[in-house]
Amino acid sequence: MKDFVFSYPTKVYFGKGAAGKALDLELKNYKKIMLAYGGGSVKKNGIYDEIMELLKNKDVIEFSGIMSNPTYKKVQEGAGLARENSVDFILAVGGGSVIDCCKVVAAQAVTDEDIWEMEFVNKKFPTEWIPMGAVVTASGTGSEMNAGAVITNEDKKIKAGVFAAYADFAVLDPYYTLSVPFKQVISGTFDTLSHCMETYFGTPRESFISDEINEAVMRNVIYNIRQLIKNPEDIEARSELMWDSAMAENGLLKLGKVTDFQAHQIEHQLGAYTDCNHGQGLAVIHPVLYSHIYSEAAGKFVRFAKVVWNITEGKSEVELAVKGINALTEFIKEIGLPTNFREMGITDTKCFRAVADSCNITAGCCKKLTKDEIFEILEECY
Amino acid sequence: MKDFVFSYPTKVYFGKGAAGKALDLELKNYKKIMLAYGGGSVKKNGIYDEIMELLKNKDVIEFSGIMSNPTYKKVQEGAGLARENSVDFILAVGGGSVIDCCKVVAAQAVTDEDIWEMEFVNKKFPTEWIPMGAVVTASGTGSEMNAGAVITNEDKKIKAGVFAAYADFAVLDPYYTLSVPFKQVISGTFDTLSHCMETYFGTPRESFISDEINEAVMRNVIYNIRQLIKNPEDIEARSELMWDSAMAENGLLKLGKVTDFQAHQIEHQLGAYTDCNHGQGLAVIHPVLYSHIYSEAAGKFVRFAKVVWNITEGKSEVELAVKGINALTEFIKEIGLPTNFREMGITDTKCFRAVADSCNITAGCCKKLTKDEIFEILEECY
Repeated sequence: MKDFVFSYPTKVYFGKGAAGKALDLELKNYKKIMLAYGGGSVKKNGIYDEIMELLKNKDVIEFSGIMSNPTYKKVQEGAGLARENSVDFILAVGGGSVIDCCKVVAAQAVTDEDIWEMEFVNKKFPTEWIPMGAVVTASGTGSEMNAGAVITNEDKKIKAGVFAAYADFAVLDPYYTLSVPFKQVISGTFDTLSHCMETYFGTPRESFISDEINEAVMRNVIYNIRQLIKNPEDIEARSELMWDSAMAENGLLKLGKVTDFQAHQIEHQLGAYTDCNHGQGLAVIHPVLYSHIYSEAAGKFVRFAKVVWNITEGKSEVELAVKGINALTEFIKEIGLPTNFREMGITDTKCFRAVADSCNITAGCCKKLTKDEIFEILEECY
Repeated sequence: MKDFVFSYPTKVYFGKGAAGKALDLELKNYKKIMLAYGGGSVKKNGIYDEIMELLKNKDVIEFSGIMSNPTYKKVQEGAGLARENSVDFILAVGGGSVIDCCKVVAAQAVTDEDIWEMEFVNKKFPTEWIPMGAVVTASGTGSEMNAGAVITNEDKKIKAGVFAAYADFAVLDPYYTLSVPFKQVISGTFDTLSHCMETYFGTPRESFISDEINEAVMRNVIYNIRQLIKNPEDIEARSELMWDSAMAENGLLKLGKVTDFQAHQIEHQLGAYTDCNHGQGLAVIHPVLYSHIYSEAAGKFVRFAKVVWNITEGKSEVELAVKGINALTEFIKEIGLPTNFREMGITDTKCFRAVADSCNITAGCCKKLTKDEIFEILEECY
């Protein structure tokens, strides 16, 4: 087990009506609240009204229109708004995009330095921010439980992870997920599964407790996606998936081990060039990527096949490993996610060379992919 | 899934040499440190000298002689010492007994109310305490990650859970566990397994993610106890067990569900009357208690047999459930823990009626035991 330092600064309020309890307790000392949300669906589904009612004794400054794949320009707009209004708390209401955007807004608003420059050029990371909370409507990214944020810098054509604020608290109300289009719910659950797999395949050793917990989370995700597809109103399945999402990215599965995240790093750059849906992009990339790397960590892929997909028969390690990857592909089809880029609406391969060349692969534990291999993978995905 | 609110206030420093890193970072703002430890074994094994070296620029007030099953009298001694010396930080170095004692000392030192009265009569719980940290030498109780403390009130003949301070940080250095007698290491690991089981059998429903993670932890504990018995120097096994211990009691396995803890509640009262070893007492009680309750939650016990003990064959639910309990008994024998009270040095049954009558069973999810049933269980354990 590798050494680690771990803290978990976000308090979780989980369950029906959790927003009321959380906002009542957590916002006592704040007056000027920046309420941040996306394209306005919260206004249609009633969540906006519910939150506004809970904030009725506060000064509310609205920051709206946060897009999927939030841009650095949008971050700067939010930071400006927060500064101009001397906001003392930021409340993000939405999915990963809204929460990610707000985490960087919170940090950008308290410094004159440009955060992008600070992190990517000067390798310094924020230690101060405007306090914030997250009310999760669309789960999957697990953004509410960590300090990472994925932001698209349009000028630089880079979609990358930025370190920023931790939310003081997160509201996880499974009933809020009923407001999200079902297709997006499913693509969000695949993001959860992807976080688990990217963490799992970070190290060849099999017996780490973190990996064994990870296997439990993966099985639970798979089981509950199937339950949810049978009955989209199944609130128990939504509850389990919402907590799985948080567990996959609250840091616990990563303790004492290294992680991979090559599929994410490739998908992020694809997103920078095509603005594609994150969960869908991951669904296409994962099996193809794994077919390129499994032979370097066959033992781990065999365990994945056996323990996660319950595959017991195979003539060789290789056959079992391949069967596990095939089971993943079949599952992706079963739950209605795409298995190639064309199904996602990507109409040509022109950007693939640039996507591959701009990927910043930081880990790659079984096998660190070269730019050419990434290009090959992208072509196969098409 | 039940609603929950969860926070995790203790920062974990895990790995070889973690104490140096932790004390350097965490004690910057403190000057008068109360260094608390047990019977002096830390002086023989070098840990005391190591910690004193790390504290060389601080005023150190020593609070020593904390016993296994720490007493309320010892708590009052520590609180007096902390007050007299205007201690601004308490550093507990030891196992669960030292940490538990310090958690209550930290809370008692800042209030004029008697904590026992406050909690058990007035039903009020501490919200303030002297900040503290825990350097774990003997793991198993998981005390370092939560605010509960088990204290023996000798006057009242009650050993009970008291709510008190959270440690700001915990140092988990697997190498420190090498300083603990091997017998105690093994009995500590059984405490971990007990925490998992007491949490697991809290609810009949089987598919909660918390239960599935729990199963992963239980399997990991069982595997690594066996590894450790093969090779007591196995630092990987010690690392996994040390983190298992924390995971079992940091609250995560309990999220969204109810817990049982009847075995603990019975063992605590046995401890109040006999001062017995906690892990050994649990080892004897668990299988006997389960043979009394399994028929009320056969499905869960069947799953326990299958998923934790890998037992696949049984003619009926009952047979499978019983096989799982028998596997637990066999495991207890295999790892050298007692299977009856006589092996633990309890020489007569005189106190059993008083032990049973004084048990404060708060939960009991599959089946809440009556005083008479507890008495029967104690007699069977003998």
